[in-house]
Amino acid sequence: MGEFDLIQRYFKRPVQHSALGIGDDCALLQPRANTQLAISSDMLVQGRHFFADVDPRTLGHKALAVNLSDLAACGAKPLAFTLALALPSADASWLEPFSQGLLALADAHGCELIGGDTTAGPLNICITVFGEVPVFAGQSQALLRSGAQAGDDLYVSGNLGDARLALDALLGKLSVPADVLLRARTRLEMPTPRVALGHALRGVASSAIDVSDGLLGDLGHILQASKLGATIATDTAAQLVAARAYSTGSRDVFRHSISAEQWRRWALAGGDDYELLFSAAVGQRAAVAAAAALSQTPVTRIGQMDATPGLRLQDAQGQLLANSFASFDHFA
Amino acid sequence: MGEFDLIQRYFKRPVQHSALGIGDDCALLQPRANTQLAISSDMLVQGRHFFADVDPRTLGHKALAVNLSDLAACGAKPLAFTLALALPSADASWLEPFSQGLLALADAHGCELIGGDTTAGPLNICITVFGEVPVFAGQSQALLRSGAQAGDDLYVSGNLGDARLALDALLGKLSVPADVLLRARTRLEMPTPRVALGHALRGVASSAIDVSDGLLGDLGHILQASKLGATIATDTAAQLVAARAYSTGSRDVFRHSISAEQWRRWALAGGDDYELLFSAAVGQRAAVAAAAALSQTPVTRIGQMDATPGLRLQDAQGQLLANSFASFDHFA
Repeated sequence: MGEFDLIQRYFKRPVQHSALGIGDDCALLQPRANTQLAISSDMLVQGRHFFADVDPRTLGHKALAVNLSDLAACGAKPLAFTLALALPSADASWLEPFSQGLLALADAHGCELIGGDTTAGPLNICITVFGEVPVFAGQSQALLRSGAQAGDDLYVSGNLGDARLALDALLGKLSVPADVLLRARTRLEMPTPRVALGHALRGVASSAIDVSDGLLGDLGHILQASKLGATIATDTAAQLVAARAYSTGSRDVFRHSISAEQWRRWALAGGDDYELLFSAAVGQRAAVAAAAALSQTPVTRIGQMDATPGLRLQDAQGQLLANSFASFDHFA
Repeated sequence: MGEFDLIQRYFKRPVQHSALGIGDDCALLQPRANTQLAISSDMLVQGRHFFADVDPRTLGHKALAVNLSDLAACGAKPLAFTLALALPSADASWLEPFSQGLLALADAHGCELIGGDTTAGPLNICITVFGEVPVFAGQSQALLRSGAQAGDDLYVSGNLGDARLALDALLGKLSVPADVLLRARTRLEMPTPRVALGHALRGVASSAIDVSDGLLGDLGHILQASKLGATIATDTAAQLVAARAYSTGSRDVFRHSISAEQWRRWALAGGDDYELLFSAAVGQRAAVAAAAALSQTPVTRIGQMDATPGLRLQDAQGQLLANSFASFDHFA
């Protein structure tokens, strides 16, 4: 199978709303009047972002999901994406499930594949995604990291830490009951980009970011961009590890075998969560609840933005904890 | 040096005309009214697209040049690009010249770096580039592969085959005088994207493509998209190998040591030329010459489009040659 057959067979489909898709030197997008194009690019490398034996279908899903998560964090509506793929060989038994997992998620978000590149090389998946953000009266409606205000509430969507729990288990660092691992592993391998929530938070949230490198590390980007500090209710965050909630009954032994410190660590410095961390004014609490309901996405208030710089971690009694949680850095 | 320091130090610069650059979940572009966004993505892998010991400065240049060449083939004006980079390590002695070569070419074309990704992994460079194409009265002005008409002239810009000659020499397949190799190697490592020519050809050329996999292979894409055939004056094309012209005087021995067949092979099936191959109606000859003059880019008429399908290669006497030139395919 040659390069062009490969593209034709697994990736080329008629475009629905883009001006021109796969098959020329460039794809063409014609953004609507009074909109901006939100653009994000993520590269996934074997051994860093996924194991060599990962199911190609889930890998296809995840490669696009992490990009859609960036659009979600800006409140952008997905439009289209490009895929650049380095493959050790043109292997149909890999390409077919990979493309199916990829395109199933793309279809679910009306995000069409409009171009890209294929080459031989060590497995590498680079997706660049395009989304639409409205501009009202000259003002972009994109959610940025820089808009938080002192006193704003801090929220996170969904669950935290299960992806890291699964990773630690797969790396043999701890033993996890099979059914608990199965669900946690789905969070690692098939993350859910919070696109509908991001969309619903436009005009409600004051800042947003997606949690990919660990909650505290990504919160650090909001603090830096907004020039503020924050206080986090760490036990509230630690309750968001889903494995904790469903490891009940006969599996209660597992839950109790894990220290409070470890649950906190997974929740605050886990990584690969692809949840939205966002701030909103106290007066927006009802609007945040409405956005969560509209997008059918659970949202939990986990702290607040402070005028005082720095990050303060509180335990359940409101006592300050030492902050020793590192966020993920590819070169640290 | 961590991931964020690396980006800050080598790649982050204030944006000039994009709405938002590096530093948030997404970059933001706001295309002007009555324009389309042309988008192309190319991935460069060590060992496939460049040698491990290549000068990082020329590699930075080439990584963007091959993408700008795709914009040129659509007649698009460069606006911005994203860079996703997998690196074995965060090595300043590599990153500094790489970023300098990359950003020097970007500056020359007013094409700004607005986002991307960095990760550890086998060296891989994935650039996605964005350009602007006007839309007049609802009609896109993009140059496409599909617009050629039977009887149209076929042209190619600049020189052909020198990049492949240099590659063959570097692979030890032939011996080339040092000064000839130096100039040919520049063509391989520092290709010139024909952006100004592509721009000038809007409304003049009927179809266009950039020559990256070899002239005949890329012509095949025009034939397929336009549902036509073509006849090529192979000796005219073979005269475009620059090494042939400047291997004179004492270096004449080299020129005469190469067979006519070999010069043709480099010109027609070399690859890595990043010239524009385009068609234009016979009535547009003066306009093509004006576009070449305006963009200060040499252009040579090398054949014509035919209603009869298939590719016909003529020698200097107008006799048909057997076509045995394969184009480059990463998986063939």
